[in-house]
Amino acid sequence: MNSNYFNSNLNRAETAKLVVSAIQRVIGDLPAGLHEPRFAGNEWHYVKECLDTTFVSSVGKFVDRFESEVAAYTGARHVVAVVNGTAALHIALRLAGVQPGDEVLTPALSFVATANAVSYCGATPHFVDCDESNLGMCPVAVRDHLRSIGELRQGVCFNRITGRRISAMVPMHTFGHPADMNGLLSVAHDFSLQLIEDAAESLGSKYHGCHTGTFGVMGTLSFNGNKTITTGGGGAILTNDEELARRAKHITTTAKLPHRWAYEHDEIGYNYRMPNINAALGCAQLEQIQVFLQAKRSLFSSYAEAFSNIPCMSLLNEPDGCSSNFWLQTLRLEEADASLRETILMTANDAGYSARPVWSLMHNLKHFEDCPRSPLPLAESLECRLINIPSSVTLAARCGIDHNHLDLG
Amino acid sequence: MNSNYFNSNLNRAETAKLVVSAIQRVIGDLPAGLHEPRFAGNEWHYVKECLDTTFVSSVGKFVDRFESEVAAYTGARHVVAVVNGTAALHIALRLAGVQPGDEVLTPALSFVATANAVSYCGATPHFVDCDESNLGMCPVAVRDHLRSIGELRQGVCFNRITGRRISAMVPMHTFGHPADMNGLLSVAHDFSLQLIEDAAESLGSKYHGCHTGTFGVMGTLSFNGNKTITTGGGGAILTNDEELARRAKHITTTAKLPHRWAYEHDEIGYNYRMPNINAALGCAQLEQIQVFLQAKRSLFSSYAEAFSNIPCMSLLNEPDGCSSNFWLQTLRLEEADASLRETILMTANDAGYSARPVWSLMHNLKHFEDCPRSPLPLAESLECRLINIPSSVTLAARCGIDHNHLDLG
Repeated sequence: MNSNYFNSNLNRAETAKLVVSAIQRVIGDLPAGLHEPRFAGNEWHYVKECLDTTFVSSVGKFVDRFESEVAAYTGARHVVAVVNGTAALHIALRLAGVQPGDEVLTPALSFVATANAVSYCGATPHFVDCDESNLGMCPVAVRDHLRSIGELRQGVCFNRITGRRISAMVPMHTFGHPADMNGLLSVAHDFSLQLIEDAAESLGSKYHGCHTGTFGVMGTLSFNGNKTITTGGGGAILTNDEELARRAKHITTTAKLPHRWAYEHDEIGYNYRMPNINAALGCAQLEQIQVFLQAKRSLFSSYAEAFSNIPCMSLLNEPDGCSSNFWLQTLRLEEADASLRETILMTANDAGYSARPVWSLMHNLKHFEDCPRSPLPLAESLECRLINIPSSVTLAARCGIDHNHLDLG
Repeated sequence: MNSNYFNSNLNRAETAKLVVSAIQRVIGDLPAGLHEPRFAGNEWHYVKECLDTTFVSSVGKFVDRFESEVAAYTGARHVVAVVNGTAALHIALRLAGVQPGDEVLTPALSFVATANAVSYCGATPHFVDCDESNLGMCPVAVRDHLRSIGELRQGVCFNRITGRRISAMVPMHTFGHPADMNGLLSVAHDFSLQLIEDAAESLGSKYHGCHTGTFGVMGTLSFNGNKTITTGGGGAILTNDEELARRAKHITTTAKLPHRWAYEHDEIGYNYRMPNINAALGCAQLEQIQVFLQAKRSLFSSYAEAFSNIPCMSLLNEPDGCSSNFWLQTLRLEEADASLRETILMTANDAGYSARPVWSLMHNLKHFEDCPRSPLPLAESLECRLINIPSSVTLAARCGIDHNHLDLG
């Protein structure tokens, strides 16, 4: 079967129906969102404790507890909980030394928050290409690009074309699949770039045994409602550097100096702390993460089996040496068959199964169209070929395959 | 009695003891924080509904409901709920047209968020003086200052000394007491400044019958844990301008264009939306606001009576023609007796009653010390003479005066 096959609308429609049938076989007839949270642990218990003690806001024990539990889970030495993943990225970039006028390498294929956070620092995102297998920033492409446009002057990387300093790179672990961290750390080292990991989507994902977000100088997480665990809205900064952690806590809590009553602030700070009631939700959610991850892995297996006989597409698997959280299950169409995408999106959504394409590439957004970029052949190809399908933890319970041991009741 | 009286430590200590006795007579022996929330309405019910339906994050009915209920309560035509008051100010300033390089008039006497939000826009806060009676931005002082350093060129106000455009002014309603809006609107009009009201502290406060935050082109509220009502963390933008409201909603929700599945964004947006679980708390809190305001007004009356015989200080009352929310009860020392402040703060806090001074003036903070400013005689005098004392809604129930009708159980 090749691309000519899909020059017929009829054949496109038939393949889309096969996709919907496969989804239906795995998760049943009921409509399904892309990713919905599940609250079956201590959520109500902890949230009620916040209300009963009146500690819902900036004071209360759950923020500290959530931070130390996320640290224990990820292996990061320090964790600072904040209001969302975008705020985490903003502060991580700032503390990594990104200055107004700098450029920061970010994936063309990412959620808009990665590039927006660079803009908040007064810096310019510089878009680079991604890898076919893990969808993350491609170290080979980035190295080639930096050899072409970058130069080191006294240990500082500059873009020879724009004259601006390139101060950092922000790989993102797309849909929970770890990017090639060894390759990217090597590029960051060779070109003197700070490496900050956008691990918004990859809580629970490991690269060669270590949790994503712990490789760079800082990493960031998101606990938005559509993530593997949620705090309503929330995020976190991970770091192994004690001084960066202290600075992150300080700057995200209005940079107030500790004093029994006086209000002194020693720098421009942000009101980015996570409220206690949201952290309470997070503590309860984190207690269940192993069950969630097991469910998502089982869902992947069920989908993989169901899609195995459908031509022209494959279900994205975890990269070699990695353990993915399978945050969003992803169909990748063959390059010749990208024309299927819209038909599948329409058919699946019409059938009540949420399906969505990957984000529009960043350099095509109006406000980033003048930003520098490398050649982006893979991002441009993948943009037309990726489809996320329903991925909630609760869907594993609907699978035909026996997941009773998951206790998803 | 005059300042010489307080040159004696002994007399300072005695007066501080009088203050603590007066607090004790009003709120009893138990320790008391400065402002603690009270959850005695539908908080559990609404928050549990979020958990039961799994709508805790960006999707869910409580955000819309909270926005329309805040609109109905304040009389603002449009309300956009956001993650906190600082975020509300940031977006209001941006949408009012504050540009990098501009100056924005802000009170020297304010919480640091007002000036920080100006900095987030790449603009410079320009500090102005306040009024002795309401602690808000003083229209007479601001007009005099603008006559001295400002000039209008083709309808745009410039600072003749720095050469920068002065684009906006941000009065703040200190401790819930309305600033002189008629005077300030007149100055804003005469010097072509956008007026944005920082009403973070003044939910429930009215100026000549209209709610604070509804006079300027936009106003902002805070629902932090220490405010009259709380959402854990939260804020809102108020405006009567439909297009500004649309823009505020758009830019605070990542500037995503509506589409069934595609991810397109048409400008640099922010992740500032209020999560549904926090809005649920807000809906329940807002239902009780009349009881809260009545309790706070009663607490004021009790304190006023208790402090009436203590020399050298007065309890801050609502300005003429205004109805204050009495967010934080405030003792104002006579100018000659400012030396009492530290002794009172120490004695009250040691006795278990939270007391705090007003914020350090903004132009004295290291990161704002180079910012332009007007003469600040009143701010500098008041900085040494203000003390906030325990102000929680629940304290009214402890008052000796009969507040049974308040149903604070």
